[in-house]
Amino acid sequence: MLCRKDLRLITIKFYFYSKFYPVKEISSVQNPLIKQILQLKDKSRERKKQKLFVVEGLREISLALKGGYDFEYILFYEGILSPDNINSFLSEFSTEAKLISISKEVYQKLAYRETTEGVIGLGRSKEHQLDSLNFKKDNPLILIAEAPEKPGNIGALLRTADAANLDAVIIANPKTDIYNPNIIRSSVGCVFTNKVVSGSTPDIIEFLKNNKIQIYCAALSASKNYHQVDFRGPSAIVVGTEATGLGEEWLSSSSQNIIIPMQGEIDSMNVSVSAAILIFEAKRQRNFS
Amino acid sequence: MLCRKDLRLITIKFYFYSKFYPVKEISSVQNPLIKQILQLKDKSRERKKQKLFVVEGLREISLALKGGYDFEYILFYEGILSPDNINSFLSEFSTEAKLISISKEVYQKLAYRETTEGVIGLGRSKEHQLDSLNFKKDNPLILIAEAPEKPGNIGALLRTADAANLDAVIIANPKTDIYNPNIIRSSVGCVFTNKVVSGSTPDIIEFLKNNKIQIYCAALSASKNYHQVDFRGPSAIVVGTEATGLGEEWLSSSSQNIIIPMQGEIDSMNVSVSAAILIFEAKRQRNFS
Repeated sequence: MLCRKDLRLITIKFYFYSKFYPVKEISSVQNPLIKQILQLKDKSRERKKQKLFVVEGLREISLALKGGYDFEYILFYEGILSPDNINSFLSEFSTEAKLISISKEVYQKLAYRETTEGVIGLGRSKEHQLDSLNFKKDNPLILIAEAPEKPGNIGALLRTADAANLDAVIIANPKTDIYNPNIIRSSVGCVFTNKVVSGSTPDIIEFLKNNKIQIYCAALSASKNYHQVDFRGPSAIVVGTEATGLGEEWLSSSSQNIIIPMQGEIDSMNVSVSAAILIFEAKRQRNFS
Repeated sequence: MLCRKDLRLITIKFYFYSKFYPVKEISSVQNPLIKQILQLKDKSRERKKQKLFVVEGLREISLALKGGYDFEYILFYEGILSPDNINSFLSEFSTEAKLISISKEVYQKLAYRETTEGVIGLGRSKEHQLDSLNFKKDNPLILIAEAPEKPGNIGALLRTADAANLDAVIIANPKTDIYNPNIIRSSVGCVFTNKVVSGSTPDIIEFLKNNKIQIYCAALSASKNYHQVDFRGPSAIVVGTEATGLGEEWLSSSSQNIIIPMQGEIDSMNVSVSAAILIFEAKRQRNFS
């Protein structure tokens, strides 16, 4: 069966007998690769040091491969995903990933939920430095989130950024790396489809000014209603956390503070909701072009 | 100290010795009132039968009182909230609530998290029937959510509806009652600030048609880009679940299907994010008036 697959899948090299982990099946949670994956899931520090990350699910892995990421290993559990299916899935991509079958016990140890799709990838990180950012068009539209804390909020922002096909998402003073498993999961893989970079607030402000990008800070004071602002030029929409809003550094560098009129009893919206309203008003003004 | 408070707070009657639960302090989790509250937190059926609900937090209780709800009991834990503070808080409202001090053990049993604000209310439900709905203006703007499943999504929709000061939120074919503690919590109390009703899909469609309200269904097929639709007349924006979208009954009764152009790799947005984009486009067209 293996030979048949090898003939069919010309773009994939199967190293069922890897030189590092000479196994085609891993059934022990004590296996060094499994221990390494568990560590990478848990520890941002290890992800940074090893330049590797862990991702679960076919859609997420597929978006990563499409986004130009490659994988060291793809692990799958035959109880959920057949070798045929994983081979057929991977055959659509060019990847050097080594394919490893894992036991139920190992899968349950690695997986977020038992009910997921039976596949876990160990991917190679990219660099996400501010100076890697360049734009194909004259009037980029960028989302900047300052020090967002909740992975769920970052994930939701990345989904919206993907839907709007933003030119970049910049995380200012990040509290975690973007390969945090909760960010990958809540972004449904959009962490891989966006151009995401991070940097310090002063560096980002300098970058925006050098690139003549207008800075529109979502703020409660000295603010213009967002729909009265012209977002058609090069624009960065900057949002803070729901709890504390944007820091003084951003507010004092703002081209224009903007606000969403709040007409009810409460005085704040979830950051992912308010960012979506602002981003899609900019998209509307640009005729979604 | 009790007498001093009683003199100061003329709008509140303190029944430290209630005729039902003759206690000014409850320290046992076996107390019938505590058992009743636990049951009401857990069981939608009991909430409906007893016409009571449980709410935690000063902001949530304050929004309920402002929204015309009253409470049977307000329970507080002195380790977090002093009698002075709860009295001063309640003095701003007209309420018949009986105030009860509870022990740490009881509070920990009742509270969602130990770190919350030390206050829990047992409130009286309102009716939420479709035929109770009437509008003060000629061109109401309504949000309709069909069979939303996740309390967090319903809560987020209610926050956005509050911010936009919508004329009503209608839940079609509800899967849970709106007094589900997770809905109250994720709405940060906006379940009390909105006019929320529920009903069956056919009844709601009939209501909308009788009231000459245009039906704009968020859908993927036969859809017009949302920003090219005129939302200035009487309008209902109808959203389904992320997983299954809107049912055929809605789509076939739609005045116009609408879509948010998706320009990235993924093909769906979170329902609370897409509803916010649609609602605020309608608000923009109406100049937020």
